[in-house]
Order: sequence, then C-alpha cells, then structure tokens
Amino acid sequence: MPETTEEISKGLEDVNIKWTRLTTIDGNKGILRYGGYSVEDIINNGAQAEEIQYLFLYGELPNAQELKIFKENVQKGYNIPDFVINSIRQLPRESDAVAMQMAAVASMAASEIKFKWNKDTDRDVAAQMIGSMSAITANVYRHILGMPAERPKPSDSYAESFLKAAFGRNVTKEEVDAINTALILYTDHEVPASTTAGLVAVSTLSDIYSGITAALAALKGPLHGGAAEAAIAQFDEIKEPSNVEKWFNDNIINGKKRLMGFGHRVYKTYDPRAKIFKGIAENLSKNNAEVKKIYDIATKLEDLGVKQFGSKGIYPNTDYFSGIVYMSVGFPLRNNIYTALFALSRVTGWEAHFIEYVEEQQRLIRPRAVYVGPAERKFVKLPDRK
Amino acid sequence: MPETTEEISKGLEDVNIKWTRLTTIDGNKGILRYGGYSVEDIINNGAQAEEIQYLFLYGELPNAQELKIFKENVQKGYNIPDFVINSIRQLPRESDAVAMQMAAVASMAASEIKFKWNKDTDRDVAAQMIGSMSAITANVYRHILGMPAERPKPSDSYAESFLKAAFGRNVTKEEVDAINTALILYTDHEVPASTTAGLVAVSTLSDIYSGITAALAALKGPLHGGAAEAAIAQFDEIKEPSNVEKWFNDNIINGKKRLMGFGHRVYKTYDPRAKIFKGIAENLSKNNAEVKKIYDIATKLEDLGVKQFGSKGIYPNTDYFSGIVYMSVGFPLRNNIYTALFALSRVTGWEAHFIEYVEEQQRLIRPRAVYVGPAERKFVKLPDRK
Repeated sequence: MPETTEEISKGLEDVNIKWTRLTTIDGNKGILRYGGYSVEDIINNGAQAEEIQYLFLYGELPNAQELKIFKENVQKGYNIPDFVINSIRQLPRESDAVAMQMAAVASMAASEIKFKWNKDTDRDVAAQMIGSMSAITANVYRHILGMPAERPKPSDSYAESFLKAAFGRNVTKEEVDAINTALILYTDHEVPASTTAGLVAVSTLSDIYSGITAALAALKGPLHGGAAEAAIAQFDEIKEPSNVEKWFNDNIINGKKRLMGFGHRVYKTYDPRAKIFKGIAENLSKNNAEVKKIYDIATKLEDLGVKQFGSKGIYPNTDYFSGIVYMSVGFPLRNNIYTALFALSRVTGWEAHFIEYVEEQQRLIRPRAVYVGPAERKFVKLPDRK
Repeated sequence: MPETTEEISKGLEDVNIKWTRLTTIDGNKGILRYGGYSVEDIINNGAQAEEIQYLFLYGELPNAQELKIFKENVQKGYNIPDFVINSIRQLPRESDAVAMQMAAVASMAASEIKFKWNKDTDRDVAAQMIGSMSAITANVYRHILGMPAERPKPSDSYAESFLKAAFGRNVTKEEVDAINTALILYTDHEVPASTTAGLVAVSTLSDIYSGITAALAALKGPLHGGAAEAAIAQFDEIKEPSNVEKWFNDNIINGKKRLMGFGHRVYKTYDPRAKIFKGIAENLSKNNAEVKKIYDIATKLEDLGVKQFGSKGIYPNTDYFSGIVYMSVGFPLRNNIYTALFALSRVTGWEAHFIEYVEEQQRLIRPRAVYVGPAERKFVKLPDRK
C-alpha cells in the first residue's frame, strides 16, 4: 500500500456500524441468538420459519392470531406482477441465480415508486416482500430448469409453498422440514457484507427493494454467499470417501487450495449452525446413496480439517453442510442456486436491519478515503501530451 | 438509542474505508482534484469526458493513440444485448429511471457469468461498461418518453453519441458541451454512499456489474442522487423570481422546509462544481425564457441562502445548478431522470474505485453491530404464547 500516516479501517473490521436488537454472535463460544433465543433452542422446538420472520420484524414471537395475520401478509406477496417474472424469464437460462433475483427485485424498485419509509407500513411491506422473494426465487429456479412460470400458493408453511412452486410437485414432510430449518438458520447473521451494502443503500433513504438489490449484489460474491456451493463442489471433486486423505494432503496441506466451508471472520470455534445442518444432512443422506457418499466425504474431510486448523480457530462454518441439505432436497449444484436459496432466507434479516436503521438510527453512510495520489499538477492539453 | 458503552461509528463519518489515487477533496477550501488536476483546470482546458474517464481508469491523461483505443473500447459497449434493453422496456413507463438502470445492469450481472477480476482485463471491461451505461441510460430515457429502442453510435464524443441516441435528433455544440461538462463534474467524489455500497459488494469479489447495481441502489435515495431533482423542484414551486423572498421567509426561515441543494457532508464552503454548473446554466438560459426564469429564481434564492447559512458552512452544492443544465439541454423533470444522468457520469468513478480496491486493497468488508437486544431467553412454543 502507498505510504500514508492516516489509519485505514481495512474491511471495516471492528468498526461498529449500528446497534441491533436482532442477532447476537459470540464467535469465541460459538453462540448465535435471534432476539435472545439461541438457534439450537429455536430449531429443537420445531419453530416455523414464519415465527422467526415475525420475531425479526416485530421483536417478539407471535401468538396464534398475530402469526395468522402475518402469514396472510406474506402470502399477498406471492402474487408478483408479470413484469417481475418477465425480468427473470427474458434472461439467458445459464444466468447466475442471485443476479436473476437481483434483476427481479430491481424491477420492483423501479415500479414501486410510492414507497416511503414509514413506521406504520414498513413491516407490512417487508412481510409482503418476504412472500415476493419466494415467488422470485421459485421462478429463478424454474427458468434455469426450463419450466414455465409459477407463483407460490398459500399452504401450511412458507417452506412448503416455496418448494411446491419451485418443483411443481407435492413435497414430503422431510423436505419441508429441511428447508424450513435452512430458512431459519440463514435468517440473519448481524452485519455481513450483504447486510452492510443494503444498509449503505437505505441510509440514503433509498427504498427497501433497492436495499435488497444492493445486498444481493454483495451476497453474489464468492467470498460471501458462494461458500455453500464452493464447499460441495469440493466434495464433488474428491469423488470418493477413500480419496479424502490423499486429496487433503495433496491440496490443503501443500497449500495448493483453500479448504472451502472452513473459517469465519467472527467465529473462532464451531459455528452452531454447522452442527444443525450436519444433523439434517446426516438424516437426509440415509435414503439417498449419492448424497450419502457426499456426506461421508464431508465428514472425513471435516475431521482432517479440524485436526489441522482447529487450533487456529478455523472450523466448519454454516456453509460446509448446507449445500448437502439443498442437494438432498433436490436442488442441483448449478447457476449459484444454493446462494439464491441463502438469499431467500436472508431477506428477512436484511429487511429487519434496514428498518431498525432507518426508523431509529438513520444517518447517511459516508466514510472517507485517504488520498495518496499525485499532488496538484497543471492540465496538459491532448496535442501536448507525449 | 439504547444504552451501550461501545462506540458506534454513526454514518461511518471520519472512518477511512480505503486509500485512493483518484480524487481529493478539501472541503474547507472548496478544492476538488482528479488525479491532481483541479476540476476548474480540467474544464477550462476543454477536456473531453473520455480523457477524464481514461485518467480515472489508468491514472494518467491519455495521448492521442491511447485515447483512440480507449474510445473504441467504450464504443464496443454501446451494442448492449437485446435482453438488457428488454429489461428496461418491459417495466412500467412511470418507473424510476435509476431503478430502471439498476434492472438493466443487474441483467448484465446475470448474464456475464464469466467475469473475473483480473488486472489484465479489468480496465477493458470497465471501458466497455461505460459505453453500455450510455446505451442503458439513453434507453431508459426513451422508454419513459415512449420512444422506440436505440443504441448509441460512435461519433466525435461520448456526450454527443449519448445525446443523439437519447433524443433521436441532431444536437448542438452547446448541448454537447454542457453534457460533456456534467459528465466530467460528476465523474467522482471520493467515497459517497453509492461508491461505498458498491465497494462493499465487490469486496466479496462479486462482479463489476453487481458493484454498479449496488451503487445505483444507494444513488437512488433522496439524500444522495435525488438532490438535483429536489433543488429544481423547489425552484419550480417558487414559480416567479418575485416570489423568492416571501417563499424563503415562509418556508426556510420558519423552518418548514429544508433548503434543497445546499449543504454537504464534506464541503463547508462553495462546492467548486456548483460554480462551474452555475456558469453553464447562466449561458444556456440566455436563449430560453423558461430556463431563464428558473435560473433567476435559483440565483436569488442562492443569495438569501448564503446570507442565512454561509456562516454555518452551508453553501450551494453541486446539485443546486446541475438540474438547470439538464433541463436546458432538454431533459424533463420527471421519473428521477436527472439522477440517472448523474449515474451515467459517476459509473466511471465507481469502476475506478472498485478496481483500485480489488486489485490493491482487497479485503472483505464486514463491520460489526453492537447488540442491545434481549438477554438469553427460553423459546416458548406457539400454543403457550399469550
């Protein structure tokens, strides 16, 4: 880097950009809580994703009546306009799934010109958008797979409505439960790059759809949302459980490759979400020989990775096993679809952070840069330049 | 705000997010330089926008041969695919112009799946994208106005090609010069919210198109790119130069409204760009009675504003007169079009900051939030909730 005496906050590490009542992480103890509830407790009690979505937007778990009204609001969002679907379907089918979501949400930002931040309506808009994100994601998947457009229909759960719309078939309780858990585990994680990009956007009082578009733009990157696909691509490359040790020595010990799905800026121990995803992956793999093989590769590689890197605080992160869960349910490893599924869960956390920021902490986000370029110089006209 | 002992960097004010060789601002002295060249010097020497675009991407002004090759690269970008144009044209015509740009750039992010950051190709991609942004913006304008699609054609200058494509007619030297100057003056301004949102996105190694999409999401907000439209809407509301004093007393002195186009987070004196825009606005208004009236309102209001707020470091900013320039050239005040024209200029600065960051300073941007929510609590199942 060029010489400068001024301090640069690289990666904004340890800079507090806001306060939050949403999510707390203790990276040393491996604790993740939503509004005070640990993710383990939430999952063990069989919570529905909608209850957690409500918790994020309203700060408390809903009672039966509150949950009913909230679900109706979400379901309103299923009915996205034709031009939102067309913004996906007119793209090449080999397109990136997250960027397709981005194009669709941008089309909502374009058309929803009446949006204004307002405490009385923010949560209704956010709830509907959670529904629209299900419709968008199902249609991204269907377009990639060459299937006709379809909107989710109200059902017992958000997870079920989404899966039925995406696959166009009935789905098993096991599949719904797996996606419901993924929806909950990926709901929020404080202020990673995607949430931060969205916060910067809404700090100009840009609309909620633009905030989500900016968040998707960041999530799309391989250092953020791409980790789940990268992890499973790595298992795929190893091919057989019997190859794990040789592959690990040849690639990881020799420093040729990075171990994907390991390590996290905040966690210095086992990510609590990774443990839950592992349990689901194990369960789902029992009835599927192909997934079982991937799962066995993953656990063998995990053992070697933890032995090698655990003492440095590098452990499996949430993306290490989540790809196996998505694969078991039937989503193919292509077009960045797993990251689009991550976004489907995370839209709730994004919205909740945006609302928290605009309603209570609003300030235009405008950092500074340290100038290290040429000192003042005289302009030279084109004919006089060498 | 809730009680916490931890420090929060509100709005990231005074946090240095990167170093830069691009732009330096001295907000107290009213100085703005691009790579060491003051904006006044650049404009007074009659520079073409393309020379400044080159300066931002390559660090030096181009010689004739370098400029020729650069222009050819930009012109390649004029030929955007049909689906990019369709991503605009299938939206409702009353849509927001910046969000329409966002939808179009997102469609490029979706389809350009081979993009990888690479020192050998980043600047070529960026140059082409500058060309594509001209094609996108022209088509956003044409769709809003109900005109058929059109792509810019190579001409003597970027400004001319854009104006001809947008308006579908021949344009005067005066019009081209005005837009050329606006392109230069809005090229970059260090790290405002839009640039910051884009930087957060590319810090995940997301692609350059996604970075621009995130930047547009932030620019769209009324506290950022919307200022030029807000300023001219205020002149419009005043209606006659003879109403200025009464309007000022009734609305600004009485604290009912904020004076739009005044004040800036960084400048505490006259923004040097505002002075240049004022000169152009004055010139262009000479032959147009309607614009002359607006200009007279603006200068009268300026005098009152500076008298009232100048001692507090609040002066006209770059957006105060730029709307008059856009209006004189023929762009109507609607659909946030002036902000889309701002984006057309700024895409160069965004790209240059992204390249500078990814190539030399790359680090995932991941701040923290201070948790102030409920302490750990036990999950209560739905039937047991009150």
